[in-house]
Amino acid sequence: MSSSSAAPRRDETAETAGAKPPMREALVAAAFQLFLERGYEQTTVDDIVALAGVGRRSFFRYFPSKEDVVFPDHERCLADMTAFLAASDEEHEPVRRVCDAARLVLRMYAENPAFSVQRYRLTKKVPGLRAYELSVVWRYERALAEYLRGRLAVRRDGTLQADVIAAAVVAAHNNALRSWLRSDGQGDASATVDHALGYVQSAFGAASPPHPAGDEPADDVVVVVSRRGAPLWRVVQEIETTLGRD
Amino acid sequence: MSSSSAAPRRDETAETAGAKPPMREALVAAAFQLFLERGYEQTTVDDIVALAGVGRRSFFRYFPSKEDVVFPDHERCLADMTAFLAASDEEHEPVRRVCDAARLVLRMYAENPAFSVQRYRLTKKVPGLRAYELSVVWRYERALAEYLRGRLAVRRDGTLQADVIAAAVVAAHNNALRSWLRSDGQGDASATVDHALGYVQSAFGAASPPHPAGDEPADDVVVVVSRRGAPLWRVVQEIETTLGRD
Repeated sequence: MSSSSAAPRRDETAETAGAKPPMREALVAAAFQLFLERGYEQTTVDDIVALAGVGRRSFFRYFPSKEDVVFPDHERCLADMTAFLAASDEEHEPVRRVCDAARLVLRMYAENPAFSVQRYRLTKKVPGLRAYELSVVWRYERALAEYLRGRLAVRRDGTLQADVIAAAVVAAHNNALRSWLRSDGQGDASATVDHALGYVQSAFGAASPPHPAGDEPADDVVVVVSRRGAPLWRVVQEIETTLGRD
Repeated sequence: MSSSSAAPRRDETAETAGAKPPMREALVAAAFQLFLERGYEQTTVDDIVALAGVGRRSFFRYFPSKEDVVFPDHERCLADMTAFLAASDEEHEPVRRVCDAARLVLRMYAENPAFSVQRYRLTKKVPGLRAYELSVVWRYERALAEYLRGRLAVRRDGTLQADVIAAAVVAAHNNALRSWLRSDGQGDASATVDHALGYVQSAFGAASPPHPAGDEPADDVVVVVSRRGAPLWRVVQEIETTLGRD
């Protein structure tokens, strides 16, 4: 659905041997220097290539549009996420797996805190970039939902549950990411995101161990869902089965 | 956050007394006739006003852009949603309240199934309209999240929970809405959305009664959350209390 498997991968590896920064990175650096100096709207692709010392065609070789240079790593990250999910097997608890997939996005932001904070401030100011970001977020959400749809297909409401859980994971991730970006990239981004994703896992991942081994057992919960009209003995039976008691 | 309280309300009421359709509706009808005949991209605002028999200024009096004529009722619906949430009090269980707010969007679509299905097909084909729709969905989600943030402020993770629940409600609503639109507006849209929102309420709103009085008891579920280490008699006691049995 997200078509990200066909997305271009970083192809500057051949260039990294030289002393000067790879052309792709040089274009990103030039673009951000100008965005900060003049503003995003006032900067043209011609300005960017002039500062980077390359031709227009080089720019469009790496970036389809000016907007894309603001988010240079999302295509790679989408491709990584799709590959990560495709490499899953039956043993992966699905909700935990999409949480781990979301952590790939966090890692991309945390790799370069200064750049991520700069971009966050820029995106907040430019409506066109906010719209672009929404479409990127939507593609991540679809990648997670597609995987979950496959894994939850056996459930009666599998498609519904897949869409809801994917949206919840993305919202939790973004809540944590934004709070880290607002703190200027200070603090432990991973811990913040882990905490946020833990909330989603506690809401939707009850069938799986809610915590990795070694966590405090005090948080280990059992959720029993039953029809109100069900006889009490049936409910008790179900609890006993869940708890593994006889 | 959604700024929708300042959104323009339907102001064609003064025109509805005449025999011809109000100008705003006439513009929408003309636009859709042309979008279907020629395609969205191939239709200009000039084409639309020519067919509707009005001037360009009249068009822009109602719609800031060509995209807005495709979604003529979202501003009103956002304003209705914001007003609905603002009219809440402490007695409204928050998760149920945002589910009810989401139902306002469904109602807007269900008011005119043929138009909604037509637009759904159009939006799927035009990337610019999909981007526009994402931004509208985002504004609904923010309206729900802002309300929840206020209501859940007392909780330790209130902001996180608000964002996650709002996203889950929107995803559930849209899953149901799309399945209704794909079925060409056949079937009971309300029942489909109720079912989808019930899933979100069961995940997040367990403390509230899951169904309004009068619903079929067969769907009435009881959710019991307990520590795994709790003694069985305690769990049973809690179920009995919840079920109102002695």
